[in-house]
Amino acid sequence: MKQTIIEPRTLPGFMELLPEEQILFNQMLETIKNTYESFGFSPIDTPIIELSEVLLAKAGGDTEKQIYRMSKGDHDLTMRYDLTVPLAKYVAKNVQNLKFPFRRYQIGKVFRGERPQSGRFREFYQCDVDIIGDGALSIQNDAEIPAIIYHTFKNLGFQDFKIFMNNRKILTGLCEHLEVLDRATEVLRCMDKILKIGQEKVEKELLELQISQETIHQLLEVLSRKGTPSEILSFLENMPITNETFQTGLQELKAVTLLLPKLGVPMQNFCVDLSIARGLDYYTGTIYETILDEYPSLGSVCSGGRYDNLAEHYTKRQLPGVGISIGLTRLFYQLMKVGFLKAKTLTVSDVMLLPFETDSSYAMSVATTLRKHGIKTTVFLEEKSFKQKLNHANKIGIAFVGFLGEDEQKEGRITLKQMDTGEQRTCTLEEAIHWMQNM
Amino acid sequence: MKQTIIEPRTLPGFMELLPEEQILFNQMLETIKNTYESFGFSPIDTPIIELSEVLLAKAGGDTEKQIYRMSKGDHDLTMRYDLTVPLAKYVAKNVQNLKFPFRRYQIGKVFRGERPQSGRFREFYQCDVDIIGDGALSIQNDAEIPAIIYHTFKNLGFQDFKIFMNNRKILTGLCEHLEVLDRATEVLRCMDKILKIGQEKVEKELLELQISQETIHQLLEVLSRKGTPSEILSFLENMPITNETFQTGLQELKAVTLLLPKLGVPMQNFCVDLSIARGLDYYTGTIYETILDEYPSLGSVCSGGRYDNLAEHYTKRQLPGVGISIGLTRLFYQLMKVGFLKAKTLTVSDVMLLPFETDSSYAMSVATTLRKHGIKTTVFLEEKSFKQKLNHANKIGIAFVGFLGEDEQKEGRITLKQMDTGEQRTCTLEEAIHWMQNM
Repeated sequence: MKQTIIEPRTLPGFMELLPEEQILFNQMLETIKNTYESFGFSPIDTPIIELSEVLLAKAGGDTEKQIYRMSKGDHDLTMRYDLTVPLAKYVAKNVQNLKFPFRRYQIGKVFRGERPQSGRFREFYQCDVDIIGDGALSIQNDAEIPAIIYHTFKNLGFQDFKIFMNNRKILTGLCEHLEVLDRATEVLRCMDKILKIGQEKVEKELLELQISQETIHQLLEVLSRKGTPSEILSFLENMPITNETFQTGLQELKAVTLLLPKLGVPMQNFCVDLSIARGLDYYTGTIYETILDEYPSLGSVCSGGRYDNLAEHYTKRQLPGVGISIGLTRLFYQLMKVGFLKAKTLTVSDVMLLPFETDSSYAMSVATTLRKHGIKTTVFLEEKSFKQKLNHANKIGIAFVGFLGEDEQKEGRITLKQMDTGEQRTCTLEEAIHWMQNM
Repeated sequence: MKQTIIEPRTLPGFMELLPEEQILFNQMLETIKNTYESFGFSPIDTPIIELSEVLLAKAGGDTEKQIYRMSKGDHDLTMRYDLTVPLAKYVAKNVQNLKFPFRRYQIGKVFRGERPQSGRFREFYQCDVDIIGDGALSIQNDAEIPAIIYHTFKNLGFQDFKIFMNNRKILTGLCEHLEVLDRATEVLRCMDKILKIGQEKVEKELLELQISQETIHQLLEVLSRKGTPSEILSFLENMPITNETFQTGLQELKAVTLLLPKLGVPMQNFCVDLSIARGLDYYTGTIYETILDEYPSLGSVCSGGRYDNLAEHYTKRQLPGVGISIGLTRLFYQLMKVGFLKAKTLTVSDVMLLPFETDSSYAMSVATTLRKHGIKTTVFLEEKSFKQKLNHANKIGIAFVGFLGEDEQKEGRITLKQMDTGEQRTCTLEEAIHWMQNM
């Protein structure tokens, strides 16, 4: 039977990495997971496919347009487009079996049929942590979030980055005070763009919203205020704004800021920025963004905030929470592009064993011993010349190569070569294990 | 705005675990991943969605009926239903950038719209390893596979399990010898069921295939032959079958069996079983199945084999390979059901810190120190009575609880309690870290 050859291709907007890139990607994933777990978050895993009725309980507009939806049997199905809606469903469904505060992380792929363009993906990994309370959740949890962000990016190898924090209640209270509460959403969405489009353009847009020059001036004076967290806090405390929303937001911001040093977050990695606003209909208190100092063009690489009611579409129970999300696929793509990440090796192996002869039995028994001691070991099993074998080991960028000839076999030894330094020794397996474990 | 409440529910056939179960599931996933990596397999990750034209290049029949398929824009899309077809696409697409033999593992969800029934899932994890050669691949690789299976199940906590091995060429050669090569597929599919339905029913089915009583007798004599691997090998060597297919299969089986002891596979965990045949149109040489001695009703928990041509639908290049797959979702479900797995804790945390006061700042700085030393730490941050806090710690099944009152804070100490033994000590953080690290 003659075969038709189909061109093997991957859809645009779907990341598919070569092994050397995948190894780097998985290292990042592992670092994020380990940091989340170090803060005591437990894993959950929700289905990629859910009933459309369930997943789209809240959605509308852009979300509905972007989803991957299909019929199967009697079911109208949708692929998850974030990890927050599945979390809401999960918590509402299992509320009797969960212990609150419920600390969970979830790392997984989500799907959005956006127009594909450089750095935008239709299938991408989100890495989320959330803390969910039953009825109430202490503001102290909001302080833990910047600590999680800090340690995650520190562990990912970044030194210079800044966590921007604000509180939505301060913004809402300010709008109330300035008597523009009816246009608060538009005003804040506009102010949120100061960094991106500049003050002048923001002023122009605000004028178009029928905001008076006087009010714009007052807004800008507050929202573009710079200074240390304590300077900004005293500035806010001295403002003649008495409404409850503003005062609550101020107290929350203060509580969070005061706890941060205890959580090991250095002050140079943290600032209060009154202009950040984020998704305006979801967050209700503290909000977070994270900027890499050397790569500001990447935008916020980790964002989130406090919300009053996680699962209002699924239960009448009040479930407040606070959380963050890292969009890892996009971040990885950009870090590769700017050269922060560089692929070094095509293998996870620590060592490749090269048998001199076609009989690999000695190599296999050496490999078994090495693996027992935690050394990741590949045996080259093909019938090739010694030069070809060494060439293969070189190409995959492995750290150590072990030569196993007749002499080595007779003496139960190994000739081990460290590839980057060229150092080579014939030694016992114990010595070889010790050498590799210390690298 | 009044909200409509949608019942939060998960589709049948889609596994969604509680945190205490998810922790166990992830431990299994991690063990499998670590074992695969210890053999030098590198990770790859392919999209969950592919073009139908690409993913269904080979499919037909049942596969086409079971797939999740949808239209989006101009694209006809299909969700992956295994990890082998995506591997074939991946290797064919990247053939210029990969180094052969290419050793990859992939762990991920696949989707099949089967009729849901107990223990059958529509979304499930597959954990695959494959070794792919360019043009040729040494038979020695086939010996490594049982070693991977053995170490994986050993590391998963199993003692008593058996890896069944056979070689398809021996079966084909036997059919050729008995002059039933035209019905080989049906005959072998029938013989494959001996363990399940018994010899009598198999004989009956073979008669219906117009196989003579004499041939059935000869077939059964060979395929139901029991004994040690070397007994079965000498039995086969003494058979008067001279065709090349049979002889090649015999030599391959011999080569693999001889290497196994070098790879640390004990003989009690391995046997040659001439009756196993597996997916008959795909595998061309060595085949593997794995049975847990105590749970034979689970069927094969890890299967695979050698194939001549991985990617014939995507490239003219000959890419032989050998690999195995573990269907983890089903295995996990069954192991929970038979009680092999038991959920113990709702958290990945090692310790939960309970501040006596509402101010958690001392607890947070203790947590920061513990996390720095690799201790996964949760701080209980809610305003509750001490009894309620302790009750929460008890309910989530945590190993250690740390009490942080005024005295502890003054002295920079912690009162640590090991929950299962009840042992309690007030000590320095160094002592506490040492205690927990040694558990």
